[in-house]
Amino acid sequence: MRQSQLLLPTLREAPSEAEAVSHQLMLRAGLIRQLAAGIYTYLPLGRRVLRRLETIIREEMDKTGAQEIWMPAMQPADLWRQSGRYERYGPELVRLRDRHDREFALGPTHEEVITDLMRGEINSYRQLPSTLYQIQTKFRDEKRPRYGLLRGREFLMKDAYSFDESWEGLNTSYDKMYEAYHRIFSRCGLRFRPVEADAGTIGGEGGTHEFMALADIGEDTIAACTHCQYAANLEKASYRFVELPLQNETSDIAELEKIYTPNARKIEELVQSLNIPSDHILKTLLFQADGKPVAVVVRGDHEVNEIKLAGLLKASELELVDQATAEQLTGAKLGFAGPIGLSIPVIVDYAAAQVQSGLAGANETDFHWKNVRVGIHFQIALLGDIRNAVPGDGCPNCTEGQLQMYRGIEVGQVFKLGTKYSEAMNASFLDAEGVDKPIIMGCYGIGISRVMSAVVEQHYDEQGIRWPLELAPYQVHIVPVSAKDETQMKAAAELYGSLIAAGIEVLLDDRDERAGVKFKDSDLIGIPVRIVVGRQAAEGVLELKYRHEKEAQQLSSEEVLAAITNFYRSK
Amino acid sequence: MRQSQLLLPTLREAPSEAEAVSHQLMLRAGLIRQLAAGIYTYLPLGRRVLRRLETIIREEMDKTGAQEIWMPAMQPADLWRQSGRYERYGPELVRLRDRHDREFALGPTHEEVITDLMRGEINSYRQLPSTLYQIQTKFRDEKRPRYGLLRGREFLMKDAYSFDESWEGLNTSYDKMYEAYHRIFSRCGLRFRPVEADAGTIGGEGGTHEFMALADIGEDTIAACTHCQYAANLEKASYRFVELPLQNETSDIAELEKIYTPNARKIEELVQSLNIPSDHILKTLLFQADGKPVAVVVRGDHEVNEIKLAGLLKASELELVDQATAEQLTGAKLGFAGPIGLSIPVIVDYAAAQVQSGLAGANETDFHWKNVRVGIHFQIALLGDIRNAVPGDGCPNCTEGQLQMYRGIEVGQVFKLGTKYSEAMNASFLDAEGVDKPIIMGCYGIGISRVMSAVVEQHYDEQGIRWPLELAPYQVHIVPVSAKDETQMKAAAELYGSLIAAGIEVLLDDRDERAGVKFKDSDLIGIPVRIVVGRQAAEGVLELKYRHEKEAQQLSSEEVLAAITNFYRSK
Repeated sequence: MRQSQLLLPTLREAPSEAEAVSHQLMLRAGLIRQLAAGIYTYLPLGRRVLRRLETIIREEMDKTGAQEIWMPAMQPADLWRQSGRYERYGPELVRLRDRHDREFALGPTHEEVITDLMRGEINSYRQLPSTLYQIQTKFRDEKRPRYGLLRGREFLMKDAYSFDESWEGLNTSYDKMYEAYHRIFSRCGLRFRPVEADAGTIGGEGGTHEFMALADIGEDTIAACTHCQYAANLEKASYRFVELPLQNETSDIAELEKIYTPNARKIEELVQSLNIPSDHILKTLLFQADGKPVAVVVRGDHEVNEIKLAGLLKASELELVDQATAEQLTGAKLGFAGPIGLSIPVIVDYAAAQVQSGLAGANETDFHWKNVRVGIHFQIALLGDIRNAVPGDGCPNCTEGQLQMYRGIEVGQVFKLGTKYSEAMNASFLDAEGVDKPIIMGCYGIGISRVMSAVVEQHYDEQGIRWPLELAPYQVHIVPVSAKDETQMKAAAELYGSLIAAGIEVLLDDRDERAGVKFKDSDLIGIPVRIVVGRQAAEGVLELKYRHEKEAQQLSSEEVLAAITNFYRSK
Repeated sequence: MRQSQLLLPTLREAPSEAEAVSHQLMLRAGLIRQLAAGIYTYLPLGRRVLRRLETIIREEMDKTGAQEIWMPAMQPADLWRQSGRYERYGPELVRLRDRHDREFALGPTHEEVITDLMRGEINSYRQLPSTLYQIQTKFRDEKRPRYGLLRGREFLMKDAYSFDESWEGLNTSYDKMYEAYHRIFSRCGLRFRPVEADAGTIGGEGGTHEFMALADIGEDTIAACTHCQYAANLEKASYRFVELPLQNETSDIAELEKIYTPNARKIEELVQSLNIPSDHILKTLLFQADGKPVAVVVRGDHEVNEIKLAGLLKASELELVDQATAEQLTGAKLGFAGPIGLSIPVIVDYAAAQVQSGLAGANETDFHWKNVRVGIHFQIALLGDIRNAVPGDGCPNCTEGQLQMYRGIEVGQVFKLGTKYSEAMNASFLDAEGVDKPIIMGCYGIGISRVMSAVVEQHYDEQGIRWPLELAPYQVHIVPVSAKDETQMKAAAELYGSLIAAGIEVLLDDRDERAGVKFKDSDLIGIPVRIVVGRQAAEGVLELKYRHEKEAQQLSSEEVLAAITNFYRSK
């Protein structure tokens, strides 16, 4: 491609609203343009990168035996009612009515559509297992679309769905996808970790892993072991602990004492005004668990993990009580709740239970109790692990490692759905004995446009993007120093011709621009190999520079050709 | 691919609601399944055909120098208001509101989005010309979705947009696309005609051609010359005529006579009850032309062409008057309007003006005038070509041919938009003299999913589909007669392996089904080459049958391999 003919509008500065590096660079390198909040057009270079991603994904999906299909974006609301998700999905589901006033959703995911398809087509175990995938536009009306393609409202996704007779079959299908995801993200040049995760809205009884690209901009926190392969989302992360004996009456600790703590509602305020460490504080939060109030106590330096809490309580809905309810339950203003003297059950985290002499709210505005003893000054209704892991916690998987925290971008997720959808929507098959059984399902997603952003978050320097080889929009960038120099332009055109003949994809900067402008653009768009055709072209000498290296090499045009084909062949 | 693992649910019978042959066959051959009216899922075979179409289109678009981009489906309503189309487009535009109550349209086409993009990126003539295309899902809320993919509500389209400095530039861009369309539809194996067409909703000042696949199910009528290349949509078709002198007072014709014609309102009723040929009747219709009533007279065997009529009247809106207005203007019940004695202008078609002694409504219920003489018994306000062409009309382009009528499916359209969108949305550039000018635009669409249907409409027999070579989901179908015969299955697997090694895409029917079932399925799905591995496989003899031929050939496995590679190489 000749650059003079390419719609490649580079920008010296990124628009100020672009916070994420990937968003800034993708705008500056002319890959994308915003049409509306969270909705983007892909310009030619961006479209090329997206197509390379699609190719990698198709190749790896096909290798697993998965079959490509294509399902509609417009989905009848009735299907979503059958699965029970039409109301539950909330405002992220884009809804519309057709000219006959029939309700539709724009698919954010396709469990309903594919379950509907398969209940019509599958009736015997002989037709199983089967895995289907599609590459398709998805819609999700994010409350706060941001970071460019990282959190968009219309985006490209690969979603796959497996159908099996048994859980063993699902495990096999799941493992195949898990391995394919490994290959896909590796080919994309991503540094990533598969982590244990929570099932969230899609639901399902089995396990689930998220594939996390490591990046500071990531909105998820990952707990990963310093020693073994263990990694989990913070919400799911467990840790190693030794169960210590609870306190008993005989412990030699000072008496309970009520102290005046005006306006000290937050942990940091207490730490500052009383000069005590936060791990001596018993933080008390009030939740409605399936509509019934409970008090929850964790250490002041810990955070409640609602998923663990819900698990311990066997509750399906959990939310913090509102201010009025809090004040009614405690008789005090917000910030002074404590476990002593409450008429509701008190749930205590293991770590909090070990606090020997704690500080806790007195259920009286502007007062706290000092020297609180857990299980003695108040009764423990339930004891368990209900906090987030913290850095330094022991790894739950090995005996040596400790947990460290990383930020990650979720680029893919694999789910064992089990029978959640097949039971709700009556998708069954006859097994070898003629017994009617629900199909065992799995689902597997990759946010393709998000992968593109994640790759840029990991591959850039001050000058611009540095595309991994398999994703680069072009493989070689030829930059003649002067468009007015006939010798240079002729040498450049010749090289362009021979590279194309060798099957290499080349961008030739034939624009009549200053050399500085051309080099800046070249670094910005980040094609892995650059050939500069300068004054020495008259003597047959060209300059080859890899985007990831500092130094250029002086080579003859034959050497250049050999170096490039070798570079791409060996990768 | 092994067929036992492929989701390929063939049907013996098509669902009764499928009227079009292509719809029936695509359901029966397991290519598509309906999700909602006009909304389909593409199963694996259908997805493969669609991808082949995408590949052909991409290759031919890229050859023209057009650049692929990707624009969003969700488009802000504000953009559509800027072009003036948000209201005008009517109920076919799918509309929705996001969670912040902002209005969006789901793109049925992308003129607004791309004009918005280009007004931001183009500012100099140096950046022109440029042609951009995308392959993307479109939404159109058809009143009556039908015929499977032929008239759907969610469908795949290729749309391209050209941007030029001048009309000469546009003509060049247009011609390139026109030629690319020729190549694309030829590669798809379609019998098609490019026809002159009317600009319709998309509008534009230049010309437009529709590419029509010839098929009886087609909803459009094409007038094409028996002799030269002339072809046009019926609505646009002109014809050759010799202007004859009008009648004069001295013609020797019987006196005007009022006759009693109870309940004879329609042409056929008059023909039958009075026993006169329809071309002796002067048919009178009443229109509102930009709100002003006019009477329009054509011959009884002709149809008014509203586009020609609007052109003659220079009217932008034209519609038949309602019953009450008709009765008020004529003083008679509907069906008895005539040109004599009306107080509104009478517009007359050339052919009607030649009627020597006509029959016309008397503007009196149950009465007609006999022996009406045009221009003598009533005044002609305007005379012109305002009728549809009819079979046998002379070709307007050559002196020898006559027009014949065909039915066609519109598979593509090329448009010279001119400045319609660039002026409305202020997309301009500075020319070489520094003068600010609107960009001259063209737009070019191909209904990809509709092409798939059109191909099937043209390529089938009683047994099923006969895919053109470039579109076939697989290139070769291997069918062992008995899955229980080890020799056959081994020979089949060996051939499968060697064909795949030779780069041929193969489907192997490894199902344990009766031979008859397998052959029926094979004919139905229509892969161009079938290899039957039967009893003679033990002696190394296989049977090769082309889907388009009746007779099979007995060949050795080496000969089979050579025949297949040769067959696909030579095409």
